[in-house]
Amino acid sequence: MAPSSTLTRPAPQALASTLEALAARFGNQLITSQAVREQHAHTTTWLAPQPPDAVVMAQSTEDIQDVVRICARNGVPVIPFGTGTSLEGQVNAPAGGVCIDLREMNRIIAVHSDDLDCVIEPGVTRKALNEYLRDQGLFFPIDPGADASIGGMASTRASGTNAVRYGTMRDNILALKVVRADGEIITTGTRAKKSSAGYDLTHLFVGAEGTLGIISELTIKLRGIPQTIAAAACSFDTVQGACNATIMAIQTGIPVARIELLNAAQVKACNAYSKLSLPETPLLLLEFHGSDAEVAEQSQAFGEIAKECGGGAFEWTSRPEDRTRLWQARHDAYWAVRGLRPGAQAVATDVCVPISRLAECVVETEKDMETLGLISPIVGHVGDGNFHCSLLCDVNDPEEMERAEGFLHRLVERAQAMDGTCTGEHGIGQGKQKYLVNELGPEAVEMMRTLKRAIDPQNILNPGKILPA
Amino acid sequence: MAPSSTLTRPAPQALASTLEALAARFGNQLITSQAVREQHAHTTTWLAPQPPDAVVMAQSTEDIQDVVRICARNGVPVIPFGTGTSLEGQVNAPAGGVCIDLREMNRIIAVHSDDLDCVIEPGVTRKALNEYLRDQGLFFPIDPGADASIGGMASTRASGTNAVRYGTMRDNILALKVVRADGEIITTGTRAKKSSAGYDLTHLFVGAEGTLGIISELTIKLRGIPQTIAAAACSFDTVQGACNATIMAIQTGIPVARIELLNAAQVKACNAYSKLSLPETPLLLLEFHGSDAEVAEQSQAFGEIAKECGGGAFEWTSRPEDRTRLWQARHDAYWAVRGLRPGAQAVATDVCVPISRLAECVVETEKDMETLGLISPIVGHVGDGNFHCSLLCDVNDPEEMERAEGFLHRLVERAQAMDGTCTGEHGIGQGKQKYLVNELGPEAVEMMRTLKRAIDPQNILNPGKILPA
Repeated sequence: MAPSSTLTRPAPQALASTLEALAARFGNQLITSQAVREQHAHTTTWLAPQPPDAVVMAQSTEDIQDVVRICARNGVPVIPFGTGTSLEGQVNAPAGGVCIDLREMNRIIAVHSDDLDCVIEPGVTRKALNEYLRDQGLFFPIDPGADASIGGMASTRASGTNAVRYGTMRDNILALKVVRADGEIITTGTRAKKSSAGYDLTHLFVGAEGTLGIISELTIKLRGIPQTIAAAACSFDTVQGACNATIMAIQTGIPVARIELLNAAQVKACNAYSKLSLPETPLLLLEFHGSDAEVAEQSQAFGEIAKECGGGAFEWTSRPEDRTRLWQARHDAYWAVRGLRPGAQAVATDVCVPISRLAECVVETEKDMETLGLISPIVGHVGDGNFHCSLLCDVNDPEEMERAEGFLHRLVERAQAMDGTCTGEHGIGQGKQKYLVNELGPEAVEMMRTLKRAIDPQNILNPGKILPA
Repeated sequence: MAPSSTLTRPAPQALASTLEALAARFGNQLITSQAVREQHAHTTTWLAPQPPDAVVMAQSTEDIQDVVRICARNGVPVIPFGTGTSLEGQVNAPAGGVCIDLREMNRIIAVHSDDLDCVIEPGVTRKALNEYLRDQGLFFPIDPGADASIGGMASTRASGTNAVRYGTMRDNILALKVVRADGEIITTGTRAKKSSAGYDLTHLFVGAEGTLGIISELTIKLRGIPQTIAAAACSFDTVQGACNATIMAIQTGIPVARIELLNAAQVKACNAYSKLSLPETPLLLLEFHGSDAEVAEQSQAFGEIAKECGGGAFEWTSRPEDRTRLWQARHDAYWAVRGLRPGAQAVATDVCVPISRLAECVVETEKDMETLGLISPIVGHVGDGNFHCSLLCDVNDPEEMERAEGFLHRLVERAQAMDGTCTGEHGIGQGKQKYLVNELGPEAVEMMRTLKRAIDPQNILNPGKILPA
């Protein structure tokens, strides 16, 4: 799908003099080869790639500032790039421009273990950070699946499996340094754990997808690695039973670290792919963090709830090798899905609804897929009411893509009608702009436009994202 | 102290025609008596009162919209008012204008117990809400001490004793309805527990002190009332010892619900006031929430940490009457302080620093007070690095007030030099505007001004707050 856009490319002369100035300043940090430009648009999204005109490999905040200043002079777009694992076209360059690749800004500047925070550059990936922190008994809990850059995760307000206990990127950032549209730097906060000093600039940039400024440094919260981790699994006859058990667990305050739903189709795919013999009905997988006694108590408490909600055999363990076995289906979920239709592309999407509506939303979505003859098992971060479909499509078959797009559209409408959101964690990018007005109303979207115009009057920061044309 | 301001009052004719239009629309909901106007400026702050020209008792969102529209026509300021318990002059009317009193907008619109959220009007107070929720086994955890309105707590980004476990107002709001400067209504979110759909408008208004819009409805997160609550107390020889114990407790992941520090002067005041016989050294008071087994384990784990950090006798209990006895000193802290100098006014302030710097900050602050001959015991939400001074002052003695202001100034500078903030939970209001630039830099404050100008171009929404003149 080519996203519609009223954006116009900069005039050829403006672009040429920008590239000349960038070449003079950046030497071989500036790359204009077609292969590299295409790499920066061919990402994990199913939306058609739109490569930038050039890529700068930034090494420092000063580099970001200079790219922005040089581009601002000629009204040329600037698109920040982390690892390219976003799913809604966030790194596409619909009006061309200069991509700032931040992966080499991957220094861990300071770890304050007493304060449970650290200061990092935006290109640090979550796995690299957690590897670095392990010896100190600390970890950063946000896990969106991909080994994304933490700057990118902040920009798309990412979350993932651990969010039910540890929150999303929104909840785990203390302060940012951000390069403004005029190249100046803003500091949005301090290392104090809380503050009521003025407008919340930090949260203005978290989830803004690089359209209001480019994050050049993050101060993020860390946690102590739990003494014990336990895993548990339980099959249910119905999605409703699994959701009821989740609701009760959260209401009674069991601090589950992860609680994942696999629908029957997903379990079936996992049985086939990973040679498992799970009952082919909805499955809940859980993880508990705490002391030995705490995880034992939490597991047992959940076991009783599961039983009350019609769950089948309940298994839990804190032995690492058994945990891996129990969670095998979840770990392999992505590849199990891909195995259902080799060669197809995955059209990934997510929605999020109040948890009381989750069962209904999942069941209606399953029916819709069945009617359409589309393949997409469902995996859900069910403690948050958030679930994912990865439709396996032949993107070159217009008829099939039309069916898929109709499905995506109804999925969003269904979630919004249940007081939910068109995206729990993937962001708006290009793919979901058309759903914003229905979700929040024209006045809210108008205010977003007002903010964008005030902060980036030239519209050079990642133009064509979030705000509908 | 009269806050400096370059604000000008509206022209008398503009004000007169505004009041005329308001009288026609609102009848006896409009009050212009001097007594009532003064009540809306005489709040818990020590800053000089600046009454509005009139007060409208709003009953509905439409009322708020109509006040804003009528005032906008003539450029007359609008000041939202909850319970008047803010501490930095947030409800003063430095340029006159119309106060919108929201206390009668106190309906609980919906409680969604399965989703752990509820929808309320801004005038609902936290105690009223918790009383309403109790039968359903739910509670709203933010407790700033005063029985503030939840709209006001959102506007000042309030927090308090429970924040170490449950977060601040920032972390507990799902969505807002806000009346814009032109009277239109914005919806900032849905009831989904997380979303990455566009700019974070919710957090733009949380902590904005009514300067960007007036909150007319809130969707907030609730929690299940814990099965068991345990209290604990432990004296330490030094503030450093108490802080080290706190750091270790948080690092090892003990989910303390409250952890409060009383310095030696505060304990001494409490002994005198409440006839206690606590050792007159720094005291930590804690609360644990969970199952019987959990709170027992948490209490014991903390007891061991306290011992390791040089704590004295450690006492814990989950029996309600014993909990009250253990926490007696904290419950009476405010009145114990007032008892130290009957008739004096309390000049209340707060700062927040990274927890690793807390002991140093408290000790230096104690020395400063001693040198100046000022009286102010210290109470701290020590798990967050946040602490409070309530200087007992004769506000009519200019020399004493000068000393007090010098102290406040150094306290903020000290906290900021330690990478902390000038206010953890009281907000900026009028009293702390002069500290914003030092904390975040001129570029960040410039961006706050850009936001304010874009959203409220006439500067009618609570003018003279947050942004330095």
